Amino acid sequence: MHKGLLIILSGPSGVGKGTIRKYFEKDERLNLAYSTSMTTRKPRDGEVDGKDYFFTSKENFQEAIKKGELLEYAEFVGNFYGTPLSEVERLRNEGKNVLLEIEVQGALQVQEKCPDAISIFIIPPSMEELEKRIRGRKSEPEEIIQQRLSKAANEMKMVPNYKYIVCNDDPKLAAELIETIVLRNIELEANKEV
Amino acid sequence: MHKGLLIILSGPSGVGKGTIRKYFEKDERLNLAYSTSMTTRKPRDGEVDGKDYFFTSKENFQEAIKKGELLEYAEFVGNFYGTPLSEVERLRNEGKNVLLEIEVQGALQVQEKCPDAISIFIIPPSMEELEKRIRGRKSEPEEIIQQRLSKAANEMKMVPNYKYIVCNDDPKLAAELIETIVLRNIELEANKEV
Repeated sequence: MHKGLLIILSGPSGVGKGTIRKYFEKDERLNLAYSTSMTTRKPRDGEVDGKDYFFTSKENFQEAIKKGELLEYAEFVGNFYGTPLSEVERLRNEGKNVLLEIEVQGALQVQEKCPDAISIFIIPPSMEELEKRIRGRKSEPEEIIQQRLSKAANEMKMVPNYKYIVCNDDPKLAAELIETIVLRNIELEANKEV
Repeated sequence: MHKGLLIILSGPSGVGKGTIRKYFEKDERLNLAYSTSMTTRKPRDGEVDGKDYFFTSKENFQEAIKKGELLEYAEFVGNFYGTPLSEVERLRNEGKNVLLEIEVQGALQVQEKCPDAISIFIIPPSMEELEKRIRGRKSEPEEIIQQRLSKAANEMKMVPNYKYIVCNDDPKLAAELIETIVLRNIELEANKEV
């Protein structure tokens, strides 16, 4: 059995990563696995440690960062979230293709640590369309919307750092393009080891 | 039977459009047809009028331009080449999906005239890689190579004008991505007419 791929799925917030993923995540040919993230936030009702997240303290999280045990991490509203390298490696060594659906900053960290990652960037058909989606999603104060939009515009500059660019004009097509990319990389990896 | 799609395949010279096309042109699911171009250049030995090209005079070509009978046209070393709209329409009305493999300038003309065209732009993995390919292809004087490179750099700015961007890192994957794009658009078109 050969080692699984590491697939990074990223793109500006609001671009529709989750919607696209729903179309392809059940495709068994892709042999996907999702690694469990580590977080310092408190578990919500019903959340299971080691399944939903690895719940940990801020001290332990900082220690994990220092020891290089996280493939990437980020802070959101006072809590830390990160991807334990050991989890990703365990799944890849089982032959699973690990999919990380992560924010642009985290994606850059992973690409630095794993240059062989299959990095896929989802772009909106246009910035106007992205604005429509961000505004349509929930009613947020104009200031927050403007922050999201300016963040998205900045994130779009990251396009050249990715190996594959997929436009989310039509989520089903975007999912099919991702399937095609992953299947071809599985094939290339299999040929490599012959 | 519904009308066929118009597919524009374009990208900077040297990017590998022809190589990619060889991988997918025999895929019968795509139901592709190629329209015959019109040219003012003299027929070469063995070339058949109406099959290889529609051979015509400069006067007739200019007349066709004036009457708006060409979907796009361009001049190369003193000769004119163009795509007769009537040919494309004839094939599309037969239900064929017409593929135009054309230069960036011509592609822009077609997009203006047919906003419903499926426009696909092939990009190189990097400008360094494109330079390698252009230099490797044939031994040309440095001046010509520099002209090609600067033209390609300019053409890359056209990326936002295209509906789909496909990177030619691996021609087989690029071909598979194009197949995916075309098949999904065939599906969307079929659903539209139900």
